[in-house]
Amino acid sequence: MTTTEATGPAAQHPADDADSFHVFDTTLRDGAQREGINLTVADKLAIARHLDDFGVGFIEGGWPGANPRDTEFFARARAEIDFKHAKLVAFGATRRAGGSAAQDPQVRALLESGAPVITLVAKSHDRHVELALRTTLEENLEMVRDTVSHLVAQGRRVFVDCEHFFDGYRANAEYAKSVVRTAHEAGADVVILCDTNGGMLPAQVTAVVATVLADTGARLGIHAQDDTGCAVANTLAAVDAGATHVQCTANGYGERVGNANLFPVVAALEIKYGRRVLPEGALAEMTRISHAIAEVVNLTPSTHQPYVGVSAFAHKAGLHASAIKVDPDLYQHIDPERVGNTMRMLVSDMAGRASIELKGKELGVDLGGDRALVSRVVERVKERELSGYTYEAADASFELLLRAEVEGRARKYFRTESWRAIVEDRPDGTHANEATVKLWAKGERIVATAEGNGPVNALDRALRVALERFYPQLAKFELVDYKVRILEGKHGTESTTRVLIATTDGTREWSTVGVAPNVISASWQALEDAFTYGLLHAGVEPAE
Amino acid sequence: MTTTEATGPAAQHPADDADSFHVFDTTLRDGAQREGINLTVADKLAIARHLDDFGVGFIEGGWPGANPRDTEFFARARAEIDFKHAKLVAFGATRRAGGSAAQDPQVRALLESGAPVITLVAKSHDRHVELALRTTLEENLEMVRDTVSHLVAQGRRVFVDCEHFFDGYRANAEYAKSVVRTAHEAGADVVILCDTNGGMLPAQVTAVVATVLADTGARLGIHAQDDTGCAVANTLAAVDAGATHVQCTANGYGERVGNANLFPVVAALEIKYGRRVLPEGALAEMTRISHAIAEVVNLTPSTHQPYVGVSAFAHKAGLHASAIKVDPDLYQHIDPERVGNTMRMLVSDMAGRASIELKGKELGVDLGGDRALVSRVVERVKERELSGYTYEAADASFELLLRAEVEGRARKYFRTESWRAIVEDRPDGTHANEATVKLWAKGERIVATAEGNGPVNALDRALRVALERFYPQLAKFELVDYKVRILEGKHGTESTTRVLIATTDGTREWSTVGVAPNVISASWQALEDAFTYGLLHAGVEPAE
Repeated sequence: MTTTEATGPAAQHPADDADSFHVFDTTLRDGAQREGINLTVADKLAIARHLDDFGVGFIEGGWPGANPRDTEFFARARAEIDFKHAKLVAFGATRRAGGSAAQDPQVRALLESGAPVITLVAKSHDRHVELALRTTLEENLEMVRDTVSHLVAQGRRVFVDCEHFFDGYRANAEYAKSVVRTAHEAGADVVILCDTNGGMLPAQVTAVVATVLADTGARLGIHAQDDTGCAVANTLAAVDAGATHVQCTANGYGERVGNANLFPVVAALEIKYGRRVLPEGALAEMTRISHAIAEVVNLTPSTHQPYVGVSAFAHKAGLHASAIKVDPDLYQHIDPERVGNTMRMLVSDMAGRASIELKGKELGVDLGGDRALVSRVVERVKERELSGYTYEAADASFELLLRAEVEGRARKYFRTESWRAIVEDRPDGTHANEATVKLWAKGERIVATAEGNGPVNALDRALRVALERFYPQLAKFELVDYKVRILEGKHGTESTTRVLIATTDGTREWSTVGVAPNVISASWQALEDAFTYGLLHAGVEPAE
Repeated sequence: MTTTEATGPAAQHPADDADSFHVFDTTLRDGAQREGINLTVADKLAIARHLDDFGVGFIEGGWPGANPRDTEFFARARAEIDFKHAKLVAFGATRRAGGSAAQDPQVRALLESGAPVITLVAKSHDRHVELALRTTLEENLEMVRDTVSHLVAQGRRVFVDCEHFFDGYRANAEYAKSVVRTAHEAGADVVILCDTNGGMLPAQVTAVVATVLADTGARLGIHAQDDTGCAVANTLAAVDAGATHVQCTANGYGERVGNANLFPVVAALEIKYGRRVLPEGALAEMTRISHAIAEVVNLTPSTHQPYVGVSAFAHKAGLHASAIKVDPDLYQHIDPERVGNTMRMLVSDMAGRASIELKGKELGVDLGGDRALVSRVVERVKERELSGYTYEAADASFELLLRAEVEGRARKYFRTESWRAIVEDRPDGTHANEATVKLWAKGERIVATAEGNGPVNALDRALRVALERFYPQLAKFELVDYKVRILEGKHGTESTTRVLIATTDGTREWSTVGVAPNVISASWQALEDAFTYGLLHAGVEPAE
């Protein structure tokens, strides 16, 4: 049994073994509440694919009907993604007070999303019912009962998020439990106890979950926020007390401090509890998936995140170094490869050398055990990274650097004499973006000018105009991603700029990097590398 | 009784009430192991002052004798700092195998540091004793006994860190406990159980600490690493089981993932446990101290750190905002002022009417309960955010939008006729970045050209050249941050670009946003907003 859920139709509410533990991800809904995250529909689709690859059982995609972006996401996710592991979940609220679920437009939008599973948020704190919802405690129960049973009758699997459950339990335990009981009796498969304000500590969570489980008999889940820095521990504390459904977000993204971080939660369950909650082999992809999702949301991956941070298995030389030489297990709680991460020794050339050799092997560049050559590459990488380059995210630029050292000279398909980009905002409101390049290729001097929708696009086009006659392969290259990061943020527009460009030839995709005081020059470097790498791998012989 | 420790001479080993719970900080020793931290002696002195201001009971300053920097730190700390609350602690190891503590140079250096308290690290994992220390289990106990009793005889208070205690306990519980017993019987005041590899979870910690306490009778402390993301919870779990000494680092700095974060630990103890562990009023300084220490170590303060991050009490969801209007306590686990932080409302397309009204109030813009006006602003924000703007990170642009709706027209200090930016990479290898702006201000037409180190910098300068005669206030404005995000990453350089600019006038800092198909046009918009907002808040009357 390797997945958390069988793949039968959701409407059958599978209760078999595969469904016995739920890894429920809410990055796209609750995670998107994080300050600084603003997801487009394309971002959401990309993240959903990563989460499905990782093997979570449920992906909560948003609140269809509440905003057009989420409605569009559900339509496109159904059409475009062939989920291997996950079920798509729509989030919404119980019906309005005094109405009927069958008539409620918000409830209808949940059904119209086509999601097989629906999470309903319900109030379970008496004061919230009265002050925020402005209805009676009895009507709130009726809203839960009516909405759950309506959705179940329509063939949906329903989970109920009891918002502010723990605070509500402290204020009025009987009422909080009556909401759980009502949801359960109306047909909700799981009732999730939410620490919405994030103020709980693990021992308290264990006690409350155990009592509610004993008193209601409902299947329970946990949704923890990290305001005390204990969201992961609170999630595990609920599991210790019998919860079998954990709601998390990738990298712990979420409102305020954030949500329970999916990665340490599943790592603890799989490695520390010995509980299989992901498909076979998924854990070893965890570091990659974590970083990929960070890239999509355009946040720097946290270097110090448990399990997946680049520093998570980094050891400073000293007390630890000699012991690690004896046995790495003496100073690591797990083998980093289990989560797709690697041990790094800091302040040690050895680690650098080893990884360069490994990387060479990976790229098919023979370093022939040449120690001086490897040292040269290590030095070159260190020096370039110190000035702002990053080769982790720019494999193609790294390969060009490596080949230049191995072959004694850089591959050149053209030589740049000069280039110029002009951006103009004209009196009539129109824009002009024009670029001119002056190049040499195969002994000829070429001058070419092109327009684009921005200066980098104009340069890209001018380069193609100049070179396509010599290298028709260029026609297949397409820029598919372009990222800019300003380094040393405290100097404003006088900072160093790093540009990462992803290019595809329709089959493979490669990434290149450029660093310069201004974004156009940095982009030009990355473009040059992108064209050079693409031509190299198209088997074209260098001409310069 | 407001401090954790009475101020009598340390040699008297005060066992009164004030000593009943220890907040022990090891930022300067274990925290300095974090990748990216490299502290000078001046840095260490500055951090020690902040920690003493905050009111921790013990500050572990480093390993005197092991490196000259730490030796110098102890000499200078004793001479230069008049500690109000904290005792200075020197860290070192038990004597060498086969020697005597009285003759051991490393032990002598600990005494020579003059620190009234000494923490000795001791091996408590049988395998580490044999493989890393290469001695016998019995000799290791003798090293503990000899070193502790020697230091105690010299009038020092001694704490013993049992390294790898939890892994050791799993491997050989009896031996691990015998190290605790030996240290205790030799005169150590506290024996600290260290989760050196950081692999523990809270329920396990509680069980082990409770057993060791019952079996040894020693006073116990806890030192947790964050490799499972549970260091704060593990620290509290040990306290739950009877530990009365917690070792933490500011902001959780430390090797690999880091150590138990001092701030959420003391906040939980004070606020959630109702236990006074800091001087009166200290908790309200926590946010300031956390950020000040981050500045000293030259790391950006984590925006999402519990209690003290700038996002820790930031609310984004419309669902929350409407409730917060009723009562902020409904959506906050504590009043942020208790830890010196503040609540912030973020504006985003998830936000509804309530957050716009709250934001208006926060910005001092009276929306006068005008429902139609608020609806117009909500619509405008949603529509702009759909096209790529983000207002949660651009307060100043949001305020301009809000004022434009309230006042019926946008504030204008100048009118743009056209602008042009040229970036050139010349045949001789030099670069030119030149911008020309054509503007109208106070009825005059101005044409100005400037150079910069990039096109945006050149535009910024040209704008200043053009306008400084009309608005001398501009001279004080400085761009301090510049961020670029490409939206819809799957179209490469043909995507929409979002630019965020942070500007300061030396007193306040404000953020503006621009969105356009190209980075230069987007930057221009953000620059225009930045200048407009700055002039508005300098009290300058609009001219156009």
